[in-house]
Amino acid sequence: MSQPAESPLVGVGEIVAATRRSAGLIRRTPMLPLDVPASEKAGPTERRPDLLLKAEHLQLLGSFKVRGAFNAVASLPEEVRARGVITFSSGNHGKAVAHAAALHGVKATVVMPDTAPAVKIDGVRALGATVELVPPERRDIHPYELAARSGAQVVHPFDARDVIAGQGTLGLEILQQAPDLSAVLVPVSGGGLISGVAVAIKTLRPDVRVIGVEPELAADAAVSLRTGERAVWPTEDVYRTRADGLRATSLGALPWEHIRRLVDDIVTVSEDDISRALRCLACHGKQVVEPSGAVAPAALLFGSFVPPAGAGPVVAVVSGGNVDPAVVSSVLATPL
Amino acid sequence: MSQPAESPLVGVGEIVAATRRSAGLIRRTPMLPLDVPASEKAGPTERRPDLLLKAEHLQLLGSFKVRGAFNAVASLPEEVRARGVITFSSGNHGKAVAHAAALHGVKATVVMPDTAPAVKIDGVRALGATVELVPPERRDIHPYELAARSGAQVVHPFDARDVIAGQGTLGLEILQQAPDLSAVLVPVSGGGLISGVAVAIKTLRPDVRVIGVEPELAADAAVSLRTGERAVWPTEDVYRTRADGLRATSLGALPWEHIRRLVDDIVTVSEDDISRALRCLACHGKQVVEPSGAVAPAALLFGSFVPPAGAGPVVAVVSGGNVDPAVVSSVLATPL
Repeated sequence: MSQPAESPLVGVGEIVAATRRSAGLIRRTPMLPLDVPASEKAGPTERRPDLLLKAEHLQLLGSFKVRGAFNAVASLPEEVRARGVITFSSGNHGKAVAHAAALHGVKATVVMPDTAPAVKIDGVRALGATVELVPPERRDIHPYELAARSGAQVVHPFDARDVIAGQGTLGLEILQQAPDLSAVLVPVSGGGLISGVAVAIKTLRPDVRVIGVEPELAADAAVSLRTGERAVWPTEDVYRTRADGLRATSLGALPWEHIRRLVDDIVTVSEDDISRALRCLACHGKQVVEPSGAVAPAALLFGSFVPPAGAGPVVAVVSGGNVDPAVVSSVLATPL
Repeated sequence: MSQPAESPLVGVGEIVAATRRSAGLIRRTPMLPLDVPASEKAGPTERRPDLLLKAEHLQLLGSFKVRGAFNAVASLPEEVRARGVITFSSGNHGKAVAHAAALHGVKATVVMPDTAPAVKIDGVRALGATVELVPPERRDIHPYELAARSGAQVVHPFDARDVIAGQGTLGLEILQQAPDLSAVLVPVSGGGLISGVAVAIKTLRPDVRVIGVEPELAADAAVSLRTGERAVWPTEDVYRTRADGLRATSLGALPWEHIRRLVDDIVTVSEDDISRALRCLACHGKQVVEPSGAVAPAALLFGSFVPPAGAGPVVAVVSGGNVDPAVVSSVLATPL
């Protein structure tokens, strides 16, 4: 458990500082109990603990990403702000950086895959950023080429201390809102969110389990934790999942350090589980969420994560709600 | 403004008592800001005040009705409990009484119109109550015939002090959660909800406007307030609205006393406004609500209620979320 000097983990003090820095700029989202009728619970799920949804789809701009983006932009040196920021994102991080930059009077360029849903591309443009669309496999390279030419700063969506510290503010809120929780389920893509949440929770409440959740079709982090080596999946593989916010091909280097030291387990959910969770959240929770936002509740609802008998409430992070209305319409038209 | 001896208004003390009686049994629902993109605001709506949703669709059983039903059942004399309770309802009040009765070990019979959505009928049965389906025009008579035979107590959905006092707990919460509000928009059917809310708000904050909202197709209360005489509309008329929770043919006698003395105005919304509000709440608010729950936000979103320039936040009560998934699916499939 020794920490190499080049990558010390983010500390809870950095998360507290991020909370202070973002006060009044981001929302304290509600914690919503999910009621599922007894008739839809079968077998072991009858003894299932209460499921609480940490509703980050109700966060400003519709996802948790503002937490990290605001902290990163607020922490930029003055001379860098003048040259602008560049980021890349399947959508929600792009919107968050665009908004944070606009608040600070900084020019923002957002590189997005040309496969991103129209609702996400339009959302970024409406916030005043320049959008550059590239093929998915160019998404992680193009921003650095741009930055080399312009001197702008790349704000990485997950592999950056300030971003991880910002996402960690979510962990502090969870502890305040659900002090009797036994576990927290967190969606995993590049690993920034779960890293920040794990620092907050494992520092203050080491008894609470921190569990990552990935789509089976983009399960590089689950494989990494199992093998002890950071796995990289081909872009065409991770793009199979409908959870378009969870298509990172590997964990970031800094998130990987956090995850291998702090996270108890990473479980996976099927595409069918994701669809069923979307419908369950809409019908019983009355919440419209994006597919990536449904994976954490899906893990408890459909048995990927089975807590011990008598365990306290489980918190599932619903990470975002930016979804094409047609997707929700189609999910609701299909029987459970 | 003199009060006839036979129908004194409910007092705020009765509401405080109801809050105490229901502590731990009902939820304190969240107050959710509704973000509508600037691109969808035009003309005068650009200066529209913030819209806050009081999220009673996230209440226990999916509607505000538990507030009144729990207070009414908890207040029954012991000998009446032994004979059971009977109620009639387009759905949500029936569920609420069924649940409150089950908690107290009391037999409940719920009379429902045979036009009620399947999801509402099934919901009442799942809570252990006996359901009797009757034609809509028999719904208000049949319960009293049953009660005459069995000696059970009828729990009226709106024309009863205990029910009004219970609904008033919502008004107290609104004042705590949005102390800077300028107005509250409340859906009106039989008038129990707005009566309780008006007592709480006008007693403690007479400067806050209390505005009722009805579908144009079931606008008996708006007509009543305008003419000063309690109007009665034919059943076949009020059943034209898709807002199936707002099909009372007239205000109750006791609610009418409250409304004519305390409510500032009652405005109406079209069926098209209701559909557009359902979609706006789903797309921008990420909330699935029933048509009756969408009328109050619709009034501010689409111009039925125009607050003065510079007014503080407007709270819209979202009264319930018990809707067939097919309805939401179809609304989401239609462009705004």
